[in-house]
Amino acid sequence: MNSADSNLLSLNTATVRKQWSLPEIIDGCVRHGIRGIAPWRDQVAAAGLKDCALRIRDGGLTVTGYCRGGMFPAVDREGRRAAHDDNRRAVDEALTLGAPCLILVVGGLPQDRDGVIRSKDLLGAREMVRDGIGDLLDYARGAGMPLAIEPLHPMYAADRACVNTMAHANALCDELGTGLGIAVDVYHVWWDPDLEREIERAASASPSRLLTITSATGWCRPSTC
Amino acid sequence: MNSADSNLLSLNTATVRKQWSLPEIIDGCVRHGIRGIAPWRDQVAAAGLKDCALRIRDGGLTVTGYCRGGMFPAVDREGRRAAHDDNRRAVDEALTLGAPCLILVVGGLPQDRDGVIRSKDLLGAREMVRDGIGDLLDYARGAGMPLAIEPLHPMYAADRACVNTMAHANALCDELGTGLGIAVDVYHVWWDPDLEREIERAASASPSRLLTITSATGWCRPSTC
Repeated sequence: MNSADSNLLSLNTATVRKQWSLPEIIDGCVRHGIRGIAPWRDQVAAAGLKDCALRIRDGGLTVTGYCRGGMFPAVDREGRRAAHDDNRRAVDEALTLGAPCLILVVGGLPQDRDGVIRSKDLLGAREMVRDGIGDLLDYARGAGMPLAIEPLHPMYAADRACVNTMAHANALCDELGTGLGIAVDVYHVWWDPDLEREIERAASASPSRLLTITSATGWCRPSTC
Repeated sequence: MNSADSNLLSLNTATVRKQWSLPEIIDGCVRHGIRGIAPWRDQVAAAGLKDCALRIRDGGLTVTGYCRGGMFPAVDREGRRAAHDDNRRAVDEALTLGAPCLILVVGGLPQDRDGVIRSKDLLGAREMVRDGIGDLLDYARGAGMPLAIEPLHPMYAADRACVNTMAHANALCDELGTGLGIAVDVYHVWWDPDLEREIERAASASPSRLLTITSATGWCRPSTC
């Protein structure tokens, strides 16, 4: 890999979570000339937030996004409040790490505390997502931390994210206003016949809504990744 | 199950293909008061077309759709010609069975004769689908057999159907004209935020494009059904 290539690379730390701790991943990036990193919250928590921030800075790495906030729908108000509080902490952590945005995987149908889906009201879940992002934006704007909606493949609509198209993410950006953008992962959106048009729509907004563009992994079939 | 319920039921014969041959499925439908049946081509071929048509008629069953034509994309002209010829035969079989439409699973990325995907040109595959349906329509209109595009879940975009939304199917109907409609399977389209609008669009066309509406099975997660 030459230097021009490696300068464009950013490693999503979930991809090597089985092999390495976050400090080991940071060392690996430095060693292999990978200049960008997108760390995950659980890995940061396991290694310590401040220590991770120092290691990333000392390694000369750029944080390209913090994974992840979201999971807004819940079966009751208490659950939605817990998600909101947790998402505020994620915004704070993203600031400490110097991330350019907090990536949101918005959540699917409302689940109870054991992760069991307790409702099939998809429209209701989408309303909870809109309201949840709206509430979090009030906090994130004050903190100066952009939020990036990541549309996930419709395969995950029930359990992980009920925003599954760029068009839906763009509509939320239209409705909710500044401080909100989109994280495009080719793995999730490649199938969409409106993809090119909706990427142009996101790019032509002022400022651009395209906060990150990534490809987490290749598509395998059948896919349960 | 009361009679009002069973009159509304139609059995897609793929759902019990492991348990029964098609003659056994037909007998089972008659025995249990299921009045509709949507047979699959391979099961019909195994049991004999004319015999199946007679058994269905003698049992007083209604064919609600014939599964399936399609699979238009191929790596070369010879492959596309073979698909066209096979689809003409499917139209003829649908007529013999008294089906109200031939359901089209349109195919994904071009595969070679061993089923290996040989191209990642999704736009090209969608053009082959449009052209393939257009050619088949010339024959199907003459035979008086409506064609019904079945949008499949985007999970299948690479290997089984690169038409994955009602909007895409409606656009093809707009472009290709009479004799073409849509087969809606809730299993495949439930996640679509534009579903209600696009069903209304299909229903308000004249004649209605909604040729069948089914729910093949429940959504399981993760799903590779």
